[in-house]
Amino acid sequence: MNHREALEALRRLDREYRHLCHVLALLQWDQETCLPKDGVMDRSEQLALLGGMAHEQLIDPKVGKHLAEAGVTEKNPQGDERFSGEERDFLRVFSKEYYKAIKLPPDFVRYAAKAEGLSQAAWVEARQKSDFSFFMPHLSTMVEIAKKRTQYWGYGDRAYDGLLDIYEPGMTEQGIQEIFAPLAVKLKDLAERITAKGIEPSIFSASRYDSGIQHQFSLKLMDYLGFDTKRGRLDTSAHPFTTTLGTRDVRITTRYIEENPLSGIFSTIHEMGHAFYELGLPDNLRGSCLGDGSSMGIHESQSRLWENVIGRSRAFWTGLFPLLGSYFPGQLGSISLDAFIREVNRVALSPIRIEADELSYSLHIILRFELERRLFSGKLSVEELPRAWNALMKEYFNIEVENDREGVLQDVHWSMGSFGYFPSYALGNLYGLQLWKKLCADIPQADSCIAQGKFEKIRAWLNETVYVWGRRLCPEALLIKATGQKLKADSFMEYIETKYTAIYGL
Amino acid sequence: MNHREALEALRRLDREYRHLCHVLALLQWDQETCLPKDGVMDRSEQLALLGGMAHEQLIDPKVGKHLAEAGVTEKNPQGDERFSGEERDFLRVFSKEYYKAIKLPPDFVRYAAKAEGLSQAAWVEARQKSDFSFFMPHLSTMVEIAKKRTQYWGYGDRAYDGLLDIYEPGMTEQGIQEIFAPLAVKLKDLAERITAKGIEPSIFSASRYDSGIQHQFSLKLMDYLGFDTKRGRLDTSAHPFTTTLGTRDVRITTRYIEENPLSGIFSTIHEMGHAFYELGLPDNLRGSCLGDGSSMGIHESQSRLWENVIGRSRAFWTGLFPLLGSYFPGQLGSISLDAFIREVNRVALSPIRIEADELSYSLHIILRFELERRLFSGKLSVEELPRAWNALMKEYFNIEVENDREGVLQDVHWSMGSFGYFPSYALGNLYGLQLWKKLCADIPQADSCIAQGKFEKIRAWLNETVYVWGRRLCPEALLIKATGQKLKADSFMEYIETKYTAIYGL
Repeated sequence: MNHREALEALRRLDREYRHLCHVLALLQWDQETCLPKDGVMDRSEQLALLGGMAHEQLIDPKVGKHLAEAGVTEKNPQGDERFSGEERDFLRVFSKEYYKAIKLPPDFVRYAAKAEGLSQAAWVEARQKSDFSFFMPHLSTMVEIAKKRTQYWGYGDRAYDGLLDIYEPGMTEQGIQEIFAPLAVKLKDLAERITAKGIEPSIFSASRYDSGIQHQFSLKLMDYLGFDTKRGRLDTSAHPFTTTLGTRDVRITTRYIEENPLSGIFSTIHEMGHAFYELGLPDNLRGSCLGDGSSMGIHESQSRLWENVIGRSRAFWTGLFPLLGSYFPGQLGSISLDAFIREVNRVALSPIRIEADELSYSLHIILRFELERRLFSGKLSVEELPRAWNALMKEYFNIEVENDREGVLQDVHWSMGSFGYFPSYALGNLYGLQLWKKLCADIPQADSCIAQGKFEKIRAWLNETVYVWGRRLCPEALLIKATGQKLKADSFMEYIETKYTAIYGL
Repeated sequence: MNHREALEALRRLDREYRHLCHVLALLQWDQETCLPKDGVMDRSEQLALLGGMAHEQLIDPKVGKHLAEAGVTEKNPQGDERFSGEERDFLRVFSKEYYKAIKLPPDFVRYAAKAEGLSQAAWVEARQKSDFSFFMPHLSTMVEIAKKRTQYWGYGDRAYDGLLDIYEPGMTEQGIQEIFAPLAVKLKDLAERITAKGIEPSIFSASRYDSGIQHQFSLKLMDYLGFDTKRGRLDTSAHPFTTTLGTRDVRITTRYIEENPLSGIFSTIHEMGHAFYELGLPDNLRGSCLGDGSSMGIHESQSRLWENVIGRSRAFWTGLFPLLGSYFPGQLGSISLDAFIREVNRVALSPIRIEADELSYSLHIILRFELERRLFSGKLSVEELPRAWNALMKEYFNIEVENDREGVLQDVHWSMGSFGYFPSYALGNLYGLQLWKKLCADIPQADSCIAQGKFEKIRAWLNETVYVWGRRLCPEALLIKATGQKLKADSFMEYIETKYTAIYGL
């Protein structure tokens, strides 16, 4: 087979692999949105079977054979100059997935999958009991498995870099540390200045917001932001998420809390931000390994741009607040736009990450990053983790953690072995604001577009600058191409300072 | 491998095959209920890929190897007396699927799948144009493919028997003909006596029935009949159906017509009848090849029992009509129970099968059976089909067919190559009434149970008599075990005569 035939064969194998991934995504989407209660056991068997088949597809010896025919090696993963730029990106990204997958022995993969199942179950029970000791041995196992995995991949004693690379290709512990450490100091300082002014109670505590009407408003919101319902849909689930089930089928979910309509509104906007990215991928990349976001963090930058920078802005609600009021006239009729904007941006330090405001959210992430890097460098043992967690909570938030459930046991990620994932959330904030600053330089009238509910120019800019690249560029290359600069926290910090100084009159 | 190990290996392979079938069913269910419009192209590729993988799983050489190790051959498909009765049934049913699948050359399977796709597309267009000639060459191809398939299976010139065996194992053209021919005469005679009295207009023509409220009533109806929503759910789709996505996940769909609430109500009840069967299968058979209905016709007997015999009875609405009235007080407040029962059982001969009443429905089926058997015995050419269709329409219904769309092009089945499928619909009516007569002998108070909305005894009888066997018994064996008799049309005809004589005062 010559190099071009080999490329075509690889494209076909990749396409089938993505189809299987989309089928797996449907099985999961259905489980979260539709599955009858007693259907869970069969579903987990279906997921295991299809997951195994997808893995088999990826490590098929044919993939290795065709990579060799295309002149691709692990040291030269993108082939040579006989291929176009996009073809070389395809070869690089696909072969990286393949090389990573074949380096893990099948016995190890099975052992890890089984340990992960046990670990998740133990975490659920430990969290219910609020007792870390119950989860501890499983967490030790998950840490060992994660280290072992990075050893198979060839990271030696740089285990944490190997984990970060799963979610943020090219990012390293040191690179992130250099950005997060000074950011933590600034965020902590700003949070202290705000909380010194006293925390206001929510304006929503007294009324009830029917979830059926909230859903009607969410559908309206999708229309308002320009979501194409021929290519996606909205459902509800316990934890909101976005999933891609086909090249033209991107679904989001949200959830409604009847005491507070903001939860549903901002979940819907957040997930739409993810969906715009997936739906904006160019046709020639869709359905291939390049038809995905650049990284977890770049994906998160898009959801957070829409949720926070656009969705929590004064301009956005100038246009939309009257409409929201028409859905809940009794509850919101007497609330002013000012009071509403303040509520939408209320700072209230909480020990729980998923309840955090825009300011303190990144501090929650930096705390987890700190603990993860200590765990993987051997400076911290799993046994010492709760104490270290609580000490950092005190240092960053001045909060005394009352129990493990509100502390070290609050997130599911570690129980699944997803170490190195958390940083992407905070990196998303930083990527997002660095992109946004450039967007505002290119579109000076962005704010008035938002106020008028006209998002076409913003969508077009994101499309041309971010979406169009799919997974061809790693986060750093994407940022440099889009903004001319490597990642810095400056734009984010400037945005946060300006916004909260104005709202809280600091 | 010894015979017991071989059996266990076959059970595992069968279980994986059923998992893949359930995943395929989810892909289809989602397509009918949730899929965004533009997701169709990817979905068809996903279905083709998974369908191919399921077929590969079934014809895996390991299956043949383990069958041989278990002492199974095509001539002795159920193994020997070292196996229990249930194990022998498993071997017989699973090996039959395997032997049928491996006899079809892969090239033929691909050719047939492609021709089917083209044929369905041509049928859609021909139906829009109401022009049979456009569809004719494709239908000829589908007939040839169906004949070829039965030749591969070894049916020689008994092609139609080979087709019937797909849907009704053990049934033959001659056996069905002996039952259908006299039945057609009796149904035709009764229909003439009724229509001679003049057709009344519908009582529903004037009002509108909100589909949201219809849906609320359908959910109430599921609860009323005892549907376990931990193991299933209700959605809407263009064509109502029931599908099994796991051993404890059986979903039904319905559709609502705002001019007539009966369509949604009886679709919901019909599909629930199918779902009760699937949900009633015993735990030891679920998830295996035996965890299915005995045949298409026995399945249809269950849906029609609930829809027609129970659901259109006076007893049923004695209990339920006040409840329905409470959902639509404005529309139904002034309608009497008598008028409602009469409407529910209104006879109005139509050229369209899916609009047919309980009486004329079987006549529509017998017409199709007549044409199919002539087509496959060579007595009728595809070219002559429309004329033959119209002649039989005139003979059975005294209806002049106005165009192909209302005639020979009305059903999708033939365009998919599903010849031999139609008889199952009418057989379902006959099986159902033969079972029902025995049920009423065993539970003399069945009618008052229905009136009181207490269905436990009826469900328990169906469970012990029908559901518990899954696919272990073929239709004839099931009927003999349940009623002591082979299939006859007597119970059905007696039921129809009695019911319509009373309603129409003949």
